[in-house]
Amino acid sequence: MNDSVYGGLLTDKYELTMLSAALRDGTANRTSTFELFARRLPDGRRYGVVAGTGRFLEALPEFRFDDVARGSLTEFLDPDTLAYLRDFRFRGDVDGYAEGELYFPGSPVLSVHGSFAECVLLETLALSIFNHDTAVASAAARMVSAAEGRPLMDMGSRRTHEHAAVAAARAAYIAGFAASSNLEAHRRYGVPTEGTSAHAFTLLHTGPDGPDELAAFTAQVDALGVGTTLLVDTYDVTTGVANAVAAAGTGLGAVRIDSGDLRVLARQVREQLDRLGATRTRIVVSGDLDEYAIAGLRAEPVDSYGIGTSLVTGSGAPTANMVYKLVDVDGIPVEKRSARKESHGGRKEALRLSRTTGTVTKEIVYPVGHPPPSVEPSRVLSIPLVRRGESVIALGTEALDVARELVASGLRSLPWEGLMLSHGDPAIPTTLIPASRPPSDTQE
Amino acid sequence: MNDSVYGGLLTDKYELTMLSAALRDGTANRTSTFELFARRLPDGRRYGVVAGTGRFLEALPEFRFDDVARGSLTEFLDPDTLAYLRDFRFRGDVDGYAEGELYFPGSPVLSVHGSFAECVLLETLALSIFNHDTAVASAAARMVSAAEGRPLMDMGSRRTHEHAAVAAARAAYIAGFAASSNLEAHRRYGVPTEGTSAHAFTLLHTGPDGPDELAAFTAQVDALGVGTTLLVDTYDVTTGVANAVAAAGTGLGAVRIDSGDLRVLARQVREQLDRLGATRTRIVVSGDLDEYAIAGLRAEPVDSYGIGTSLVTGSGAPTANMVYKLVDVDGIPVEKRSARKESHGGRKEALRLSRTTGTVTKEIVYPVGHPPPSVEPSRVLSIPLVRRGESVIALGTEALDVARELVASGLRSLPWEGLMLSHGDPAIPTTLIPASRPPSDTQE
Repeated sequence: MNDSVYGGLLTDKYELTMLSAALRDGTANRTSTFELFARRLPDGRRYGVVAGTGRFLEALPEFRFDDVARGSLTEFLDPDTLAYLRDFRFRGDVDGYAEGELYFPGSPVLSVHGSFAECVLLETLALSIFNHDTAVASAAARMVSAAEGRPLMDMGSRRTHEHAAVAAARAAYIAGFAASSNLEAHRRYGVPTEGTSAHAFTLLHTGPDGPDELAAFTAQVDALGVGTTLLVDTYDVTTGVANAVAAAGTGLGAVRIDSGDLRVLARQVREQLDRLGATRTRIVVSGDLDEYAIAGLRAEPVDSYGIGTSLVTGSGAPTANMVYKLVDVDGIPVEKRSARKESHGGRKEALRLSRTTGTVTKEIVYPVGHPPPSVEPSRVLSIPLVRRGESVIALGTEALDVARELVASGLRSLPWEGLMLSHGDPAIPTTLIPASRPPSDTQE
Repeated sequence: MNDSVYGGLLTDKYELTMLSAALRDGTANRTSTFELFARRLPDGRRYGVVAGTGRFLEALPEFRFDDVARGSLTEFLDPDTLAYLRDFRFRGDVDGYAEGELYFPGSPVLSVHGSFAECVLLETLALSIFNHDTAVASAAARMVSAAEGRPLMDMGSRRTHEHAAVAAARAAYIAGFAASSNLEAHRRYGVPTEGTSAHAFTLLHTGPDGPDELAAFTAQVDALGVGTTLLVDTYDVTTGVANAVAAAGTGLGAVRIDSGDLRVLARQVREQLDRLGATRTRIVVSGDLDEYAIAGLRAEPVDSYGIGTSLVTGSGAPTANMVYKLVDVDGIPVEKRSARKESHGGRKEALRLSRTTGTVTKEIVYPVGHPPPSVEPSRVLSIPLVRRGESVIALGTEALDVARELVASGLRSLPWEGLMLSHGDPAIPTTLIPASRPPSDTQE
């Protein structure tokens, strides 16, 4: 923990050495645009979900260099650079995709505009936030889609860094998860929480005569009411279910199964519950589930899913691999030519075409201010996020619900093959309309 | 960011509902031992490296529930539980492996002893810290081993959550990395930092007449000296190297290549540098490297490596999948029998046997106080970490160097096949001596 002092230090050293060199040779104030985008989706993924926008905008005003921070930089920075950092705060503009928007390879998820100095300083922070949150939200959306309306709960806090866990709970909620186990995510972001008990609570009720699962269940029901969820697989599932109904009666809220062949167990437990008269007791399953396992349980009497490791680790893609590249200097498009790591110059924005049914067909990335002529219905994806350093969109709890609705409508807008879990191409193609080289066409 | 208030809320809701139920039925004060361990290593790994111990011990005194935290819990917790939390701090004992120790399946990495209430509350925090830090350190150690003495630098901050990045830099340093790009890791933990410039700095030096790489290099050398590292692959590597030596002279510190076929480029660049007289200029390579790519570059004239994504995401194993299980209640060993998720009852500690050469041969996990008779040289791995809630080991910067040395000696102690990068079994077997069931043998 010990996180009370930070802000600007959550960054890479080279951002500051570049700043130092640019201040020295007079290029620090050149008007610059950096673009944050993914060259490709994680292997075989058909879409991604933008997440982190709200956290990034909340972090912006705190990305400062206080005395403690500057004190730790004196060993390698010159006085001019330290003076610049003392007064630093971002005063530029940011445009980009709303949080919860789908994205594809090349989508200009963020476009940061200002002096080179102020824009370059944001690189690491922006990438850390977007790469983490987007990876989690993108995996979570596939799980939500696979669950076909059954609620999902994030139980992954223990499988990731203690602060990443809070951001992961937030990203999962945006993607459509119903709740999280994480209490700080509730306090900070209003994410609904759930959680009842672990195997330890059952094991705790062991005496000289051996285990006493019924005593554990009775204690839990006494404390949390019959609506609670009892964990029935500590010893034997059939005995566990019998003890659960004995402790709570037929009004028991739910039982949780955390191990074994969940397909077989879900059916057995459903039959047993029904036989015991607990026909409305729900079945919660957990234990190393990912989107494929969720889909594999579609035919079973499972009422909700608890998801841990696969959620917080992005289900095989723990980072979104977004990059942050300088694309424009004083109105001149710039791009690098490194092998397989090319960038495309010029400030860009994007729109998405759809059929009249609402199904999307194509994304077009074009130079700012020069949208393509179009006869099909389209929606501009790039919106103003920050002007002169101040956020111009709503943040906080309500913004989370807006983002959550945007993910849901985005998933509804995909062609059917876009929702397939199997490896495939991006659900829609992206067309890039390149920037014209000056001086032929630089009217903006 | 906004991380100023947390502490106890970095946890799962069910820890608190279990506490509530246990307080109500009188079991909360039963003397309990929880064990933190991994049932198995990540797929094909031959060893793991314990990391997070120092961070966990530093977090312990901060894991409290202040007014703000308790205020967010009133909607689901009863007054007795809230009163318990108001006064809570961990006052129990912790034993475990020193940070930097190798571990294998079943190694009792942490053993937490106290009342059920105080031990269960630590579950999520302990797992978050150990699962993250251990995953990074375990991957990092394989990279260090593959690099055979050439320095490695962590450049992965941008590929993971902004706070996880700080912990990852610390874990990588423990595992033997030479430095990190992360400035907060330097301020907080004293991790050495490195970093010079990105492609953006070269692209910034673009004018109406086009790119001017030489101007960018000259500016960087003016600011940072000829010992700096110039990034030569923005446009064309051969031209980049020529510009680099033109800007800095033959005393140039290093060039960095971040794209393309690094094997071919490293050789070409080495020849070109030598031809230009820059025979002592080092070659730094980066760009999607992992332990296999590092090993694949062993024969090339590469002087150091920059590692990003694969480091901070655990190179395919982003979490160590450790669990935290109740193993003893009031002196009675307890264990669950869930399919493929068994635990083994009883308080345990461990020792490692070795040949007289120092090569380890076996790990033995045994009931506390009952070590096996042994004729081979052995070292007890379990040490006291916390007594009555207070850390009894050194923390902070110096402790990091001790852990780093422990990793290095651990890697030297492995049999040769233990250092192979290919998939395989754990380098040494672990033998578990089970706890005797009471009352036959419960002398402790």
